[in-house]
Amino acid sequence: MKHALLAVTASIAILVLNPAALADSHSPLPSWADGNARQSIVDFVARVTRQGSPDFVPPAERIAVFDNDGTLWVEHPMYTQLAFALDRIRTLAPQHPEWKTTQPFKAVLDNDMAALAKGGEKALLELIVASHAGMTTAEFQATVSDWLGKARDPRFKQPYTALTYQPMTELLAYLRANGFSTYIVSGGGVEFMRPVTEKLYGVPPGQVVGSSIKTKYEVVDGKPVLMRLAEIDFINDKAGKPEGINKFIGQRPIAAFGNSAGDREMLEWTTAGDGARLGMLVLHDDATREYAYGPARGLPNTPFGTFPQALADEAGKKGWVVISMKDDWKKVFTFEK
Amino acid sequence: MKHALLAVTASIAILVLNPAALADSHSPLPSWADGNARQSIVDFVARVTRQGSPDFVPPAERIAVFDNDGTLWVEHPMYTQLAFALDRIRTLAPQHPEWKTTQPFKAVLDNDMAALAKGGEKALLELIVASHAGMTTAEFQATVSDWLGKARDPRFKQPYTALTYQPMTELLAYLRANGFSTYIVSGGGVEFMRPVTEKLYGVPPGQVVGSSIKTKYEVVDGKPVLMRLAEIDFINDKAGKPEGINKFIGQRPIAAFGNSAGDREMLEWTTAGDGARLGMLVLHDDATREYAYGPARGLPNTPFGTFPQALADEAGKKGWVVISMKDDWKKVFTFEK
Repeated sequence: MKHALLAVTASIAILVLNPAALADSHSPLPSWADGNARQSIVDFVARVTRQGSPDFVPPAERIAVFDNDGTLWVEHPMYTQLAFALDRIRTLAPQHPEWKTTQPFKAVLDNDMAALAKGGEKALLELIVASHAGMTTAEFQATVSDWLGKARDPRFKQPYTALTYQPMTELLAYLRANGFSTYIVSGGGVEFMRPVTEKLYGVPPGQVVGSSIKTKYEVVDGKPVLMRLAEIDFINDKAGKPEGINKFIGQRPIAAFGNSAGDREMLEWTTAGDGARLGMLVLHDDATREYAYGPARGLPNTPFGTFPQALADEAGKKGWVVISMKDDWKKVFTFEK
Repeated sequence: MKHALLAVTASIAILVLNPAALADSHSPLPSWADGNARQSIVDFVARVTRQGSPDFVPPAERIAVFDNDGTLWVEHPMYTQLAFALDRIRTLAPQHPEWKTTQPFKAVLDNDMAALAKGGEKALLELIVASHAGMTTAEFQATVSDWLGKARDPRFKQPYTALTYQPMTELLAYLRANGFSTYIVSGGGVEFMRPVTEKLYGVPPGQVVGSSIKTKYEVVDGKPVLMRLAEIDFINDKAGKPEGINKFIGQRPIAAFGNSAGDREMLEWTTAGDGARLGMLVLHDDATREYAYGPARGLPNTPFGTFPQALADEAGKKGWVVISMKDDWKKVFTFEK
């Protein structure tokens, strides 16, 4: 009697506790338009989760990786982390009078984006290091959380944390409901993302892979702290993404989602594995609801999140699915009416 | 009606699906003797899991970290990974005739452990790099798995994977049953451990933090690979342990388990946090069933896994619990009668 009760209860419990069991009969991914992109996701999930299917993948190997900037949240008119860095430089400027006459800091203080762009990647790294180092990890985390709470983006006048793509948060939840582990694998700073990824995406800190600066363990007044050093540890972009995946996750993903040239190697690495694989790229082709940039398919060029024609060509050759923001997403942001 | 049924079902489901809810009434940790060590664990778990307790910690923050060598499995007469490296050097020697006359390789081929010891840490790193690099990550993983399947330790004549401590695997399972996430944080190579941690400890690859060498993403004959470079990326030992925890896990643990001077900073970092914390150190004081080394408490000194008196003193001062293998463990290995 006891065992029968437990068995029945367990069956009901599986239905109650596992929304995935009900997902197919309702409508998963409600913000996705019917079409090839949505269908590719649903078909892939069915193939790898169906017991007895030749493409079945045990839950422990259902690893899905997501780029962040431009894939899960907005990266225009500039990366959110860069907006944070510029604000930090302005805030810290009174303590650094030399910045008034030293590039790239002068460009920031003069709001001279052309001069800043001239400095290239080196200038950006200098700004990141100057604004992200020289404090403890706890202090940095508090600074990031405080800024994200207060700052508003220039176009939508929303907190940056409101600029996540509703279809992608649905996708994250849908994959997890089907036994996937979802990781963020971003060129952004890992400690910039971690304070918010659980709340925004349901991704805990240990499942966030990103770029990092070195830290140093110190005991200050008997209290251990981790000091953030002005030294790059790891750049998790381009070829760094599969390297970061190997280092942090230690398993090859079966699904990867990105939107730019920085995600190419991650999609190559993911989809070169045996069995069913899914690679998808968000194309920003919706200037009305969000932004439009490529330069693939004749879209305007961009310094942030470039999607070159070569990437579109490789996608075509390798069966990666390009998601048209304009056509494949019924809704972009949660705050939309 | 529907809601009431769901609520009742969910309550039963929690009992059915969560063995932890029943754990206290049975006997968790059966290989642990009654005593301070076992009691410290059970009391700590009760404090942080009891709803409404001032020390309650939500499951998402119940992070427990474990050293591997000497804490979860045997590290004498030498680290398992070092035994692997020496075997690899012997296997690869025919392709490297120069090793016959070059230290530290000559010492390995002559089986001259005194000469090897003279080379110190630098010699060990040279051996590790020579035996662990210059192949793809997939090749290395296959080599490790193959070796672990065949090699036997010199004293117990067991596969190295049989030399895990039964009380510690019970502890890992007990913590997970109580909502903890369990991580390995070891000085050992992360890619040496990952092929077996799920099977040995129930710890998936993404929850293993360790030392690493750099890898390089390459496309060879159209196929992407990660090549292992002869260059150290990160040493996850001593101060490197809290740095590694911050980098890989991104949260401060509430419980840490180690056995040597290499674990000191990890325990300091863990137990310096607010609220209930647990730090424990395995003392190898059982030459009959395993090994005895310190030099704390007058035990013999050792080159592998040293437990100095200063660590015992710090443990006393900070409330870390020292586990006596001899007194606190009723059973050490699963293969014991």
